Amino acid sequence: MDATILPVIETALLQVSADKGLATARDRLEVMSPQCGFGELGTCCRICYMGPCRIDPFGNGPKTGVCGLTPDAMVARNLLRDTVGGTASHVGHARHVLLTLRDTLKGKAPYQIKGVSKVMSLAKTFDVPTEGREVNDICRDLVNIALEDFGRQDDEQPNNWLSKRAPVAEQALWSKLGLMYSNPHNEIETAMHASSMGNDADPLSLMMRVLKMSLIDGWTGLALCVDLQDILFGVPEIAVTEAAVGVLEENSVNIAAHGHNPVLSEKILEWAEKLEGEALAAGSDGINVVGVCCTGNELSMRHGVKLAAHNSQTELILATGAVDAMVVDIQCIWPQLAQVAKCFDTAFITTDAMVRIPDARHIPFEPHHADESAREIVQTAIEAFRRRRGKPVDIPQLKSTAVAGLSVEAIIDLLSRLDAEDPLKPVLDQVANGNIFGFVGVVGCSSIKFRDNAMTEEMVKHLLRQNVLVLTTGCTAHICAQDGLMTSEATYRYCGEGLRSVLEILGEAAGLGGPLPPVWHMGACVDNSRIVDLMVVLAERLGVKVGQLPAVGSAPELVQEKAVSIGGSFLAMGVSCHIAPAPKVLGGPMVTKLLTEDLQDLLGAVVRVELQPKAAADWMVAHIGEKRAALGI
Amino acid sequence: MDATILPVIETALLQVSADKGLATARDRLEVMSPQCGFGELGTCCRICYMGPCRIDPFGNGPKTGVCGLTPDAMVARNLLRDTVGGTASHVGHARHVLLTLRDTLKGKAPYQIKGVSKVMSLAKTFDVPTEGREVNDICRDLVNIALEDFGRQDDEQPNNWLSKRAPVAEQALWSKLGLMYSNPHNEIETAMHASSMGNDADPLSLMMRVLKMSLIDGWTGLALCVDLQDILFGVPEIAVTEAAVGVLEENSVNIAAHGHNPVLSEKILEWAEKLEGEALAAGSDGINVVGVCCTGNELSMRHGVKLAAHNSQTELILATGAVDAMVVDIQCIWPQLAQVAKCFDTAFITTDAMVRIPDARHIPFEPHHADESAREIVQTAIEAFRRRRGKPVDIPQLKSTAVAGLSVEAIIDLLSRLDAEDPLKPVLDQVANGNIFGFVGVVGCSSIKFRDNAMTEEMVKHLLRQNVLVLTTGCTAHICAQDGLMTSEATYRYCGEGLRSVLEILGEAAGLGGPLPPVWHMGACVDNSRIVDLMVVLAERLGVKVGQLPAVGSAPELVQEKAVSIGGSFLAMGVSCHIAPAPKVLGGPMVTKLLTEDLQDLLGAVVRVELQPKAAADWMVAHIGEKRAALGI
Ligand code: SF4
Ligand code: SF4
Ligand code: FES
Ligand code: FES
Ligand SMILES: [Fe+2]
Ligand SMILES: [Fe+2]
Repeated sequence: MDATILPVIETALLQVSADKGLATARDRLEVMSPQCGFGELGTCCRICYMGPCRIDPFGNGPKTGVCGLTPDAMVARNLLRDTVGGTASHVGHARHVLLTLRDTLKGKAPYQIKGVSKVMSLAKTFDVPTEGREVNDICRDLVNIALEDFGRQDDEQPNNWLSKRAPVAEQALWSKLGLMYSNPHNEIETAMHASSMGNDADPLSLMMRVLKMSLIDGWTGLALCVDLQDILFGVPEIAVTEAAVGVLEENSVNIAAHGHNPVLSEKILEWAEKLEGEALAAGSDGINVVGVCCTGNELSMRHGVKLAAHNSQTELILATGAVDAMVVDIQCIWPQLAQVAKCFDTAFITTDAMVRIPDARHIPFEPHHADESAREIVQTAIEAFRRRRGKPVDIPQLKSTAVAGLSVEAIIDLLSRLDAEDPLKPVLDQVANGNIFGFVGVVGCSSIKFRDNAMTEEMVKHLLRQNVLVLTTGCTAHICAQDGLMTSEATYRYCGEGLRSVLEILGEAAGLGGPLPPVWHMGACVDNSRIVDLMVVLAERLGVKVGQLPAVGSAPELVQEKAVSIGGSFLAMGVSCHIAPAPKVLGGPMVTKLLTEDLQDLLGAVVRVELQPKAAADWMVAHIGEKRAALGI
Repeated sequence: MDATILPVIETALLQVSADKGLATARDRLEVMSPQCGFGELGTCCRICYMGPCRIDPFGNGPKTGVCGLTPDAMVARNLLRDTVGGTASHVGHARHVLLTLRDTLKGKAPYQIKGVSKVMSLAKTFDVPTEGREVNDICRDLVNIALEDFGRQDDEQPNNWLSKRAPVAEQALWSKLGLMYSNPHNEIETAMHASSMGNDADPLSLMMRVLKMSLIDGWTGLALCVDLQDILFGVPEIAVTEAAVGVLEENSVNIAAHGHNPVLSEKILEWAEKLEGEALAAGSDGINVVGVCCTGNELSMRHGVKLAAHNSQTELILATGAVDAMVVDIQCIWPQLAQVAKCFDTAFITTDAMVRIPDARHIPFEPHHADESAREIVQTAIEAFRRRRGKPVDIPQLKSTAVAGLSVEAIIDLLSRLDAEDPLKPVLDQVANGNIFGFVGVVGCSSIKFRDNAMTEEMVKHLLRQNVLVLTTGCTAHICAQDGLMTSEATYRYCGEGLRSVLEILGEAAGLGGPLPPVWHMGACVDNSRIVDLMVVLAERLGVKVGQLPAVGSAPELVQEKAVSIGGSFLAMGVSCHIAPAPKVLGGPMVTKLLTEDLQDLLGAVVRVELQPKAAADWMVAHIGEKRAALGI
């Protein structure tokens, strides 16, 4: 077992909460422990009122549910509902962005088309004519293609975003396995239906539904969402930022933007700039918008906004007393935040109709009236600063610089400085010669169950030492950024020789004045589609399938249903995944074997559970080694 | 407490299973007991991997989930997912029927428009011109109106089936409460999103989502489904049938049709008639199609097919050894059935892609190739009979006659024989003078947790004695039919004097040669919309809201998620509901109070939990009394 390492930032933050006498999630987890084993193993079913049924996987007590459901079917059905929760979340986010874009084009929402290059590249993907047409007209066609996916009631017709955006070789396999989908909403409905009592009871059938649902997450929930966000807000470019609680400023109006949807946070940023004068007049040094969770990632990717906290630090940064307003939209918002905010002058502001939290202040925000609401939110923060001004705050002075904004476009732009004709060649050469041993996409949440072990950053360091390039998104990106892993120094400090040499060349090409960092910040959790897109272009350039690349996914501190469905979307691409903690399926031996072994034959990918950073990294390196061997490199 | 009454049919059936050494759900429940209290009270959350979180509502241990979620939000969120499961099931069923009708009109599915009268009445509802038009053209317009509801991405536009079919007064209230919906699929997605970790955490907001989801169940899941089923298969007319296991015939090819969707069972019935010759040639007396669960209700309503078993008897009738084939489509199919069937020559046949069950024989059935599949299924049954022929069977000789087919149209047709001008007047007069004290819609499942207490039939008898007319659907209809409550004798035996006198008049008008039964079989669980429609016409005739009628809903043996959302749809109509067992919300005091008290102010309806038949009936009678008093009658 690896040594326990309590990250310095968590240590400092926990001390702040402790000083104020605030209980934290760690305390709540402690009183909750031991947690229910039936729930953890997946063998608890509450889907009908003959239950709750729980099955001891060690063979004591009942062998099936009252209806006869087997433990394997039970865990698969529960997993299916988890993936529906995750996929519905991303699809909802994507649909919100789609409708915002539609309304923007109608002149009904105060946004602009900032990502003209994205409009053009998508037009090519979707065979939309561009010759002599206005950008808005092209864009309208794209919107209609996306809308069509939600309206179609003919399941024989493939989903547009899946069939045109995803690689063809994989589609052939998905088609064979019955995983292709048409209308994401039909599938969400069907999955909830199939998992209701007395429907699908076959673990294999249910697991194929899990994969199908995950595919929907990957291509509608993520890819569609990111494509349209890039159209509205621009394609991210490389930018330098800072990360960790130290980005809060005692005498600024600190606005922490938390959640996932840039439709809100872009407007907050805009109005923070517009109202800078009011903030100065209130006696502050100005407005300091900082990013939390995936909203933070979105803002840092497009504007270099500083990153204040990942998800499991959200309650902790409020304890500094320095956050004037925390404004949230959707997903990963702990209800506890409203309670902590109450102890300070912090305005905890919910904005989305779907996210109501007791004791929060609700300022409705929707695209049509985005400016009015954003103005009110920023003014609310300034007001809160007025009340806070002069009171003591407790901001641990810890932060790191971090390079962000590595969209696929930014990466290719960078690489084309080395080889304008064939920009991927330099990378592929380095992969072939082993300087880049492989790629790991480290994604997902930050979990209090693993933070005390510094799971993510320690695992990443083990990977870097073995010349594995790390691509990251979501809260794991925050963790890496806070730990200094997105700096040139990290390249010197942690990388194996081969990887370092590559990053030095790339850093020079980028004009960074040092090597490129070894951990690439590719965005929010929806931006996992960027990681997939990068793999797709590499695979296509090599003439292999994505699953053949020396690449693995890892969700080392999984918390959310969304992370489950994202993991499934990686598997569907043929990319094996490390995960911690164990998914809630261990009570089903067939499902466990399917995920950890038999999926290899179906999809060419497996799931591996490793709870310790070194063991996780070692497995991934070994797995990458096998892929390399199969490629003959 | 009421005395324990083990119904004679269950007793006989359990004996058959015991004789064969088969364990039943009762045995499985016994080893499962005591069941998990956290699950029963609703205070278990497994929505993220910081959990499972469980909260002892008696104040020991943690007070919130690790994320800070309160017990009230936890139970409300769980309840919301239950209603999504229920609503998605019904919406999926409705959409399947809609697509079958669409394809029938295209000549791609071998069905016909049998319910021309329904086409005409719906055309009126939806302002579809009929003058000089073909039925199919009118019908196509209706299909497009329904399809539009699933494609629309403009939530400002109301749902067609809700806004045109539901009563106007109620719509005004729903609108005020934010319960109106546009696209059911958008709402299912949003509800799954809102209930994922870190979104809606406000119990009141979540409970409004529960009601909105239930409204979707009521008007899209149920009303749309039933309307279109009536178009395809005809509007039910009064028919006499028989009920209980004794309808199985030793020397016939017994085909038990189980599930919910007449798109399958209508074809099975058709092919059973067509293949009668083959069955005779196999040495049988012919083919005996019997109905189980809601498929049984559908077939008995439209064809007088005999009812063999309600849901909790499904495994028990297989133990007779006399079922040659049990063919199932969707919903309420216990996986255990395949295991019991294996002990006999029974062909247990799944047909729907969404319902795969280990050890079942799967014969894919979909509308385009309905005839081929139905033929194969019936032939499979004949084959099974060949193997069974001559082997001993064990069919308890118990059955009762039962009147079924009381659609709203059939009821009004009957009443118009008393008053052709104003058919509802005779009933309303009898309500006014107290001969009919009120109405109770007894709906939902049969639960092994309540069967030993004969909960449904005992409760119904208490109601009848107090002159309450009982309308029933689903498995509670089977229970009542089996217990002889759908006979003229029951009117004599159980009804109070007033109710009896009314039923005598009606029976005479119907030419039944005796009084109308006091329990009206109105169909399958989707046909709860028929109960609502009946209440709507009564309320409209009286010039009051549905919620003002002396009417209550009851789900005395609730099992399914579907029953939860149906219950919610009654509440949304202002109709109070009795329910047993307690919904899984008791761990949330605010939600419990909302449902049992505060909902009165919002919707004019409350939920009442009573576990004993007499107490349940007494509460309902008292509640109806209050409604009567308010109406001044
Ligand atoms: S669906 Fe089956 S396993 Fe689940 S609670 Fe009901 S009886 Fe138990
Ligand atoms: S969502 Fe909250 S209450 Fe539910 S399991 Fe996660 S931490 Fe626990
Ligand atoms: S108590 Fe809920 S999963 Fe065990
Ligand atoms: S073990 Fe308690 S609800 Fe699952
Ligand atoms: Fe995220
Ligand atoms: Fe039913």
